[in-house]
Amino acid sequence: MKYHTPLTRDELRELSIPEPWSYGTADRVRFGEIDALNHVNHTAYLRWFETFRINYFRDYGISNYDDGSPRIVLKSITAEFIQEMVVAQDYIVTGRTTSFRNTSWVMEYAVWTDQGLMTTGSSVIVQLDPTTGAKLPLSASVRETLITRDGASQA
Amino acid sequence: MKYHTPLTRDELRELSIPEPWSYGTADRVRFGEIDALNHVNHTAYLRWFETFRINYFRDYGISNYDDGSPRIVLKSITAEFIQEMVVAQDYIVTGRTTSFRNTSWVMEYAVWTDQGLMTTGSSVIVQLDPTTGAKLPLSASVRETLITRDGASQA
Amino acid sequence: MKYHTPLTRDELRELSIPEPWSYGTADRVRFGEIDALNHVNHTAYLRWFETFRINYFRDYGISNYDDGSPRIVLKSITAEFIQEMVVAQDYIVTGRTTSFRNTSWVMEYAVWTDQGLMTTGSSVIVQLDPTTGAKLPLSASVRETLITRDGASQA
Amino acid sequence: MKYHTPLTRDELRELSIPEPWSYGTADRVRFGEIDALNHVNHTAYLRWFETFRINYFRDYGISNYDDGSPRIVLKSITAEFIQEMVVAQDYIVTGRTTSFRNTSWVMEYAVWTDQGLMTTGSSVIVQLDPTTGAKLPLSASVRETLITRDGASQA
Repeated sequence: MKYHTPLTRDELRELSIPEPWSYGTADRVRFGEIDALNHVNHTAYLRWFETFRINYFRDYGISNYDDGSPRIVLKSITAEFIQEMVVAQDYIVTGRTTSFRNTSWVMEYAVWTDQGLMTTGSSVIVQLDPTTGAKLPLSASVRETLITRDGASQA
Repeated sequence: MKYHTPLTRDELRELSIPEPWSYGTADRVRFGEIDALNHVNHTAYLRWFETFRINYFRDYGISNYDDGSPRIVLKSITAEFIQEMVVAQDYIVTGRTTSFRNTSWVMEYAVWTDQGLMTTGSSVIVQLDPTTGAKLPLSASVRETLITRDGASQA
Repeated sequence: MKYHTPLTRDELRELSIPEPWSYGTADRVRFGEIDALNHVNHTAYLRWFETFRINYFRDYGISNYDDGSPRIVLKSITAEFIQEMVVAQDYIVTGRTTSFRNTSWVMEYAVWTDQGLMTTGSSVIVQLDPTTGAKLPLSASVRETLITRDGASQA
Repeated sequence: MKYHTPLTRDELRELSIPEPWSYGTADRVRFGEIDALNHVNHTAYLRWFETFRINYFRDYGISNYDDGSPRIVLKSITAEFIQEMVVAQDYIVTGRTTSFRNTSWVMEYAVWTDQGLMTTGSSVIVQLDPTTGAKLPLSASVRETLITRDGASQA
C-alpha cells in the first residue's frame, strides 16, 4: 500500500474505489484510535478527514498551512458509520469538493478498505483572512481547480 | 460552576439555557482540545457529546457501561460550529432524545457558554446485544423515560 | 467533588492526600480516555498533567496563556502507572515544583482516587521568550512563589 | 518514504539512523497532533511509540492483539524532547528491547527526521495473562528473539 501519498484516479480504480472519487490517501488504523468498544472511535474518522485535507488543500492550491495562508474553519460536519473498523486495518480516505460559494465550499469524504465502504462524511468549510478574520473569497484559480479536478459546481 | 453533575431543568434556566433542554452537564476546555488554529478542535465537541452520554445513558436507564449493558453504537452524526471556543472556557453540554424507533434513537446536543450557543449536534444511535451483536429493542421503561423526560416521539 | 477548582492543602488532607501536596484539581475519567484494554490509556495521564498546569501556571503567576506569556515547553517527562483506572472514575491531580534553575524547573505530579495513589509523574519544563524563542529566566516573584508555596529548592 | 512497513537495518542506515537501531517504521505528523504552541504535542510521541509497538509485538512474536494474546501493560515511561516538530513532517520511530526480566522488559525508542534525532523515550512493559490478569513469563522463543534481534540482556 502506498501510504500518505495522493493516489491518482487510476490507482483508486485499481483499489475498487468507484467514480467520481479522484483523490485519496492511504493510512493505517492506530492502537489509540480504538475505543472501549474495541472498534475505531467515531472521532478518529473526523481526524482522518482533517489529515486528508492537509494534502488536499496543498495540492489544490487552497492552503499550505503557513502564516500567510487563509484560516480554514469548519462550519458543519456530518458522518455516517457503515462498517466498524479494527486496529491495524489499512484504509483509504477519498475526498472531493462538490460545490462552492463565494467564501465557502462543501467537501465529501469516504473511507474504504478491502471490505468496501466503511464511512462517509461531509463538511462545509469557510476560509477567513488570517489577519482580519473576515471571510475570504476563493480565488479564481482555486474555483477553476475545484471545477476541473472535482467536478464541483458553483452554488 | 457545578461540573460533571447533571444539571436540572431549573438550573439550566438559571444559566439562560432555554427550553426544551432539561438535562446537561458542565465541564471546562482543556489545553489538549485546542488545535493549531488556537481554538477548540471540532472533534473535541464530539468527545464532549460522548462524555455527556455516559451520564445520560446511566440516568435514563439505557446503559451503565458494564459487561451486561447493550453495545451502543453511533450510526451517524452531525455538528454545526457556531462560535469558536478557547482554552479554559467553562461550557455546558445539553442533550436530549427527540425520537426513537424500535432499536435506534435520535439525540440532539448543544454546547453553551456565557456567550450563548456555541455548537449544536445530533446523532443516530443503535443498541446491540452485547453477545450476539444483533439489534436490541429499547425496553418499554426506556421508551417511557424518553417520552416523559425528553418529550421524545416514537418515529 | 469540587471539580476544576484548585483544592487547598486542607481539602487535600480531607481527601487523604498526604503532605507535601498542597495544590490539586479534581476531574473525572472520560469515555474517550479508555483504550482497547478497557482502562485509562497512559497518554491520558499526561493530558491530565497538562490540564493541571493551566491552573497551576495561572495561580503561580507563571503564565496565563495569552500572547505575552512565556512559551512553556516540556524538555522531558516520566510517569509510573501504579493502579489501572476505569471510565467515570473521579480523580485528583496534584502537582508541585520541586526544584528550579535559571530558566527551567522540575514538576512532580500524582493522580489520586478513593483507591489511593494511581499514577505519578514528573516533567522538566523550560520557559522561552514568546517572540525570540530564547530561554527566559524565571522572575524573582515566581521563584519566591515556588519556594513559598511548594517548598521548591534552587538547583 | 516507505510508511508503516518495518524498515530493515540496512534501510535505517541509509536514512542515517545509527546502530544499534535495527527496527523502525515511518509515518507523518498529522494536523491533530499539533497543539496550541504550533508544534507536535508531547503526548503524540507517546502515541507513536504505542503504534510502533503493534508492528513490533507482532513481528517479534509477543502479541498479535487477538483475544488469546497476553495483556500488555505499561508500568512506566520516560521521554525526552530534543527538537520540536511541525505538521506534515515525515518521521521514523525506532524501537528496541534493551533488557528483560521474567515477566517484564525495557524498551527504548527514538524519533528521527531528516533533521536528526527529535525525541527519545523508554518504557517498562509487563505482560499479563489475558484471563487471570496474573503476570505472564516471556516465552523462551520471545526471549531468544529479543536477544538475537535487539541484543537485549537478561536483567
